[in-house]
Order: sequence, then C-alpha cells, then structure tokens
Amino acid sequence: MMKINDQRLLANIARYAEIGKVGEIGVERIALSDEDKLARDLLKEQMLHLGLEVHIDQLGNMFGMRKGKKDLPAVAFGSHLDTVYAGGRYDGALGVLAGLELIQSLNDANTETDRPLVLVNFTNEEGVRFAPDMMGSHVYSGQAKLEDILNSVAYDNPDDTVRSRLKAIGYNGEMKLGSIPFDSFLELHIEQGPVLEKESVDIGVVEMVQGIHWTRYAIEGEANHAGTTPNIYRKDAGYASAKIIDYIGDYSRKQANPVLTTVGAIAYEPNTINIIPKKATFSLDLRSPDDEALSQAQTEIDAYINDIVTTAELTLNKEVLVRFKPVHFPADMVELVQTASENLGLSSKQMPSGAGHDAQMMSACCSSTMIFVPSVRGISHNIEEYTKDEDVVNGANVLFNAVLSRVYATN
Amino acid sequence: MMKINDQRLLANIARYAEIGKVGEIGVERIALSDEDKLARDLLKEQMLHLGLEVHIDQLGNMFGMRKGKKDLPAVAFGSHLDTVYAGGRYDGALGVLAGLELIQSLNDANTETDRPLVLVNFTNEEGVRFAPDMMGSHVYSGQAKLEDILNSVAYDNPDDTVRSRLKAIGYNGEMKLGSIPFDSFLELHIEQGPVLEKESVDIGVVEMVQGIHWTRYAIEGEANHAGTTPNIYRKDAGYASAKIIDYIGDYSRKQANPVLTTVGAIAYEPNTINIIPKKATFSLDLRSPDDEALSQAQTEIDAYINDIVTTAELTLNKEVLVRFKPVHFPADMVELVQTASENLGLSSKQMPSGAGHDAQMMSACCSSTMIFVPSVRGISHNIEEYTKDEDVVNGANVLFNAVLSRVYATN
Repeated sequence: MMKINDQRLLANIARYAEIGKVGEIGVERIALSDEDKLARDLLKEQMLHLGLEVHIDQLGNMFGMRKGKKDLPAVAFGSHLDTVYAGGRYDGALGVLAGLELIQSLNDANTETDRPLVLVNFTNEEGVRFAPDMMGSHVYSGQAKLEDILNSVAYDNPDDTVRSRLKAIGYNGEMKLGSIPFDSFLELHIEQGPVLEKESVDIGVVEMVQGIHWTRYAIEGEANHAGTTPNIYRKDAGYASAKIIDYIGDYSRKQANPVLTTVGAIAYEPNTINIIPKKATFSLDLRSPDDEALSQAQTEIDAYINDIVTTAELTLNKEVLVRFKPVHFPADMVELVQTASENLGLSSKQMPSGAGHDAQMMSACCSSTMIFVPSVRGISHNIEEYTKDEDVVNGANVLFNAVLSRVYATN
Repeated sequence: MMKINDQRLLANIARYAEIGKVGEIGVERIALSDEDKLARDLLKEQMLHLGLEVHIDQLGNMFGMRKGKKDLPAVAFGSHLDTVYAGGRYDGALGVLAGLELIQSLNDANTETDRPLVLVNFTNEEGVRFAPDMMGSHVYSGQAKLEDILNSVAYDNPDDTVRSRLKAIGYNGEMKLGSIPFDSFLELHIEQGPVLEKESVDIGVVEMVQGIHWTRYAIEGEANHAGTTPNIYRKDAGYASAKIIDYIGDYSRKQANPVLTTVGAIAYEPNTINIIPKKATFSLDLRSPDDEALSQAQTEIDAYINDIVTTAELTLNKEVLVRFKPVHFPADMVELVQTASENLGLSSKQMPSGAGHDAQMMSACCSSTMIFVPSVRGISHNIEEYTKDEDVVNGANVLFNAVLSRVYATN
C-alpha cells in the first residue's frame, strides 16, 4: 500500500488554517471573500509547483490536472476551501489538501498513472453568503444554469453578486464548466457528526447522502405599541413564528421517521423591545435519507405554518431555496473505499452522510463517493471543530489508495 | 373658555413632521440623532420667538419659561420630540407643540398668569437606541443618577454614548437637572391604543400609568451542523427560545389577570440556515396596572425560562433593564382634566395609560397627569399612526384650559 507523507500533509493543513484564522484552531473563510482569494492563491501556487496544469472555470472552480499515460476521463478528487462563519480548518480543506498531498506523493515516487488525475477546489460549498450551497459542483454537474447562479445576490449586501465577487478576487475564469471529462470523483471529508467517534471506527464508507430541503418563510402582521394594544387587536408575527419554530423542533423529536429539522436563522422587524413584531423571517433546514419522509415532513410543516398564519390573520411568503433528493453512491465506488480501508488495516462502517457535499452533486455527472474520518465530539461548523492527526492521515491514505485502484482501470 | 388657534397648531405639527419624514405621514427622529437636533433647533427658535427664556439641562432636556406675575413654582407641560424607528408624527410631538401653541395663544391675548409656565421637551422618551426609555424625565425627577445615564451605550454602536451624542448635536447644556421648581406637569398625548376610537369618546382622562418590566434574556447552547447532529446531541438555543416566546405570548392570553406580554426583539448567533443556533437573545416587555399581577407574571415567566434552560442543558443570562411600578395620578389633577373636558362640551372617559410616559416619571417630583386623544385604529409606533385634526385640536384645548385652571391657583 502506498502512503502519503504524514507530516507534510499536517503542516499544510496548519498553513491554510492561518488564512482567516479565528481563535486558536478556528477558520472563517467565506466563499469569494478576500480570505478565500488568499487560500485560492496559495493552492494555485502549490499546484503549479507540483507541475499540474491549472484551470479556472467561469464559476471560479479550480482544477489541477496531472496528465495520465492514456487519454481517458480523469479520476478527480477534492472538496472546497471555503468555510462557514466561525468554522473549522478541516471542513472542505481536508479533502483538497489530502488530494494535493497524494499528487505530491506520486511525484515523489515518480509514478505515472493511466488516467489523468484532477484535484478540484469547488466554489462556495457552504452557501453562507450566496445561495445555493454546493454551488460550484451543482453547476459543474449540469444541475443549474451558470447565468442564474452568477446573479445570486449576497444575503447581507444587495450590491454583491457571485459575478462581482468572482471578478473582485480574480477568479472569474474562462474555462467552460464541465470541460474536463471525469471518470469519477472521490471526496475525503470529516464526518461532522458524532457516530464514528462514539463507535470507535476509523473510516466512514459513505454509501449515500441525505436529501436536503431549505426554505425561507416570512410572516407578516402589524407593528403596534406593546403597552396599549390589547391581545385581541394584535397581529404579532414574532409570537406566531415562535409557535412554528417550536412545532418544527418538536416534529423531528416526536415522530419515528428519520427527519432532522433545524431553524438556524431568524429576523424580526422592527426588532424593538416595545413594538409588536410586524414581520418574522426564518429559515427551515430539513434532512432525511428517506425521500418520502422528507416530503411528508415538508408537507406537514407547511400545513402547520398555514394554519397558524391563517388563524392569526397574518400573511405568509414562502421561498424555496434548495430541494435535493437523497443520493446513493454506486456500489463499485463504495467498494473501492471499503477495500482500501481494509487493506490499510483500518476499521470502517458504511453510513449515510448527514451533510450535503460536492460529491453528492458530482454523482449526477460521474461515479462518485466519499470517505469520512471522525470529528471529535461530532462538532463542526464551529471554531472547536477538530479531527485527530492520525484520523486525518488515515483518511488521506484511504483516499490515496482508492484513487490508485481507480486510476489503473483499463476501460 | 379660551381656545388655541387650530390652523396654526396643525400647520406646526405638519412642519415638524417634515423632519425625519418616512413615507406619507410617518416620522423617524431617533433621540440624539441629527434629525432630533433639527427638531430641537426649530423648537428653540420658536420658543425664543415667543419671548420664552430657554434653558438646556445637562441631559439635553429643553425648557421654555414664560414668567408669571408671582414667584411661584411653575405649571409645566410638554412631552418629547423623539420617535421610535419608523414612527409617527403625533407620539410626543403633539404634547410639545400643543404646549407651544397655548403659550402663543396667551401671548396673542396679552394674558399674564400668576404662576410661571414652562414648556418641556424631554430627552429620549422612546429609548430605542439608549436605555432606559423616559430618560430625560426619569433623571429630572431624581430617580436615576445623571452620570450613569450619560454613560448609557447605544444598542447598535458601542462607540456612541448619551454623553457623546449630546455633545455631537450641541445639546449638552449647563443647567443642573431639577433646577426649575415645578408645581405640576401636564402631558397631552395620543392614546396609542384603540379604546377611545372604539367607544367614540373625545378625551381620555388618564388616572394612572401601567407598571412596566423590561428584561433581556440570552440563552446559550452549542453551534453545530444541522445535518449531522442527532437530536440527542443538540443544544439548540433557538428552539428553546421559541418554546419560551410561545409561552410568553400564551401567558397573557390564557390567564385572567390584566398583564400584557410582548417579545419585540430577537437575535440568533450565528444565524445561519444550516447551523444549530448557539445563542438566542430576546427581550421581554411586561405591563400591568396591577403591581401584584406584574410581579407574579415576571416570577412565573422566569420560572418557565429556568425550567426550559435547565432541561435543555443550556445556560441563561438575564439582564433587568426596567422596573417601573404602576403610577396613580393625584385626584385633583385628574379632576382638572375632567372639568376642562366637560366645560368644552367634550365626552371623556377615565382610563389607565398602557404606555409609559414622561408624566409617569414626573409624578415623582410634582403633581402630574395626562390627557389622551384617540388614535385611529389604535395604531402607533408605526408610520401609519394617525389622529384626526379635530381630536388634535380638542386635546390642545383641554390642555390649555386645564393649565389655565392651575396657573391661577393662589397657593
């Protein structure tokens, strides 16, 4: 079994973690920000240094190609360098930097491969400033129109679009999306959940990705004075939204079907202590490995929201942001990861992914799969996100050997 | 009965409504803002034009004194020129401008009074950027220390204090607070509730002001990934706050005691669609004419919050912002307003005030009372706030004649 260079990989992860550093080990590198640009610049420099052919596509997705002996579709791997607000150093970066490291290890060994290898850094996987998330792979895999996505407006600034920010950081590339033919895409990622750690398993062999629904609701009533307006005359959008958010939280806790429900964002207007809220806007994040359970939860929650809004004589605006069905990875790709783990003497477990990932999008255009490594206390999207060095190295070696198994394929 | 000049008063109200105008009839003139300065400058100019002696105290409260024939404590009247965000043109300004108008009417009639008259514009009645509300009258009446209040920091900018903003707009006056001896204080104000309009009554004779409790709660849990964190590992501050806000809304709707409950402001951190909220901060506004009911509501709501927080293994920070007991106005002051209304042929009704007012604070240092006029649809703290011209004029005439009854008193 070939192995990567442990210390070089760990040092490189630490180096990227300095770009947008928050606290001791956290990172904030929002997609298309100035910090994102710095990380991209470093990656470009490192890819060129390894002799890779660097391409930037029209959505800023970055590709580093290592030519193969044969003119075949490439084995691709990677992830994303952007983070959430106050996030961690592993979510995304691990997959990109383990990919860089495996190429360097191949270079060190003067090893040629049949298929070309392509390291990918996808644009805006997190989607915290610009919707949708998994933006780069979503468009790359042909599931959304480039033009629409370039016009996506920042949540916090109507003057910022994906197009304007790509230009601002110099990553409005020229390559058309999907130009490089991919045989397959493999993504190493932290689990971001507690299962592997709780069960003391080294490697998560990801067989599927849950479906995701994102929706934004805006409820509107009437602003009025908190001290003089009797309850019968109130149209309190905040109170109504609290009933709904309570119901949404209860929903996943009270029913048997595997659905996770989260309200992560809220805003009241005018948001003043002595004024009844005129408007409450909030988000809904629904996830399930079971598409039917997901649809049913969406239907039942929407029905509850309509009931509350109608009874309280309020108005409702519903905006569908994301509807991704569950994705099942091909059995041969899952087996590749399973076999690599076994050959390396690592314990493994087949599991679904709770989070959305670029590999989920890429499965629409090539054979894809994922490798998970444990997250300490299951924490991610948080500056305390942490994965042990040995798990980082284990994951990178599984990725390396799974890629090697695929790259010598004769078809 | 003496009468004010209707058209002059209405024109002056319209003139002030241009300062910070929002939409067709709304006004936004936040205390100590540049718009507040413009309104204050106009008032100072108009007071000087009427021959009043103008004083500014160390908290920016403005006084326009018309000398009396005798050296007696003054009959004072007025209100405030500041508004909430996106507020109306009558809340506060009506009391100040009706006071200015009655002085002009006395000047026109060449009428001297025994007692001095003092028109007052109190600083920051609304308290939307700086706590507490009713700031000027609160300190003027000796219920808070000037030094503490001058250090109050803006909710939205840690660099702004009351002291720095007073200096910035040039209203950091020299007069010590409380220097002018007051016999009494009368405040004309819009009702800000629906009662007078619903019952077709001209004048509200205000016998008392409800007690007010303001509290800010911050609940803290743990930020984590919305897709990968099973419910048993979640510490969701947003979900917990929704249960609490639902309970608070239900509280005043389900029990017999007269308590109003409002949650007007909320903030989640990090406030992102796919991250479980680590922190939820929200306000509580409690009001009641019954001090016992108020205390009981506070106790029961606090107990519920503690239960939720403890059960969900979250932490709680509670900040007491305001605790005002209900205030009963003296019977002779209430009767003054009652009699003036009757003598003018207007229908009237004794009622409590649901909102806090400067007169409530001033009752700690002199005989105070209030006069209410109807608010169309009970709407205030809203750009749609409206009071009919005839009601504006009726209120000003009641104020005028109540003041006249007091100003000739022989004591």
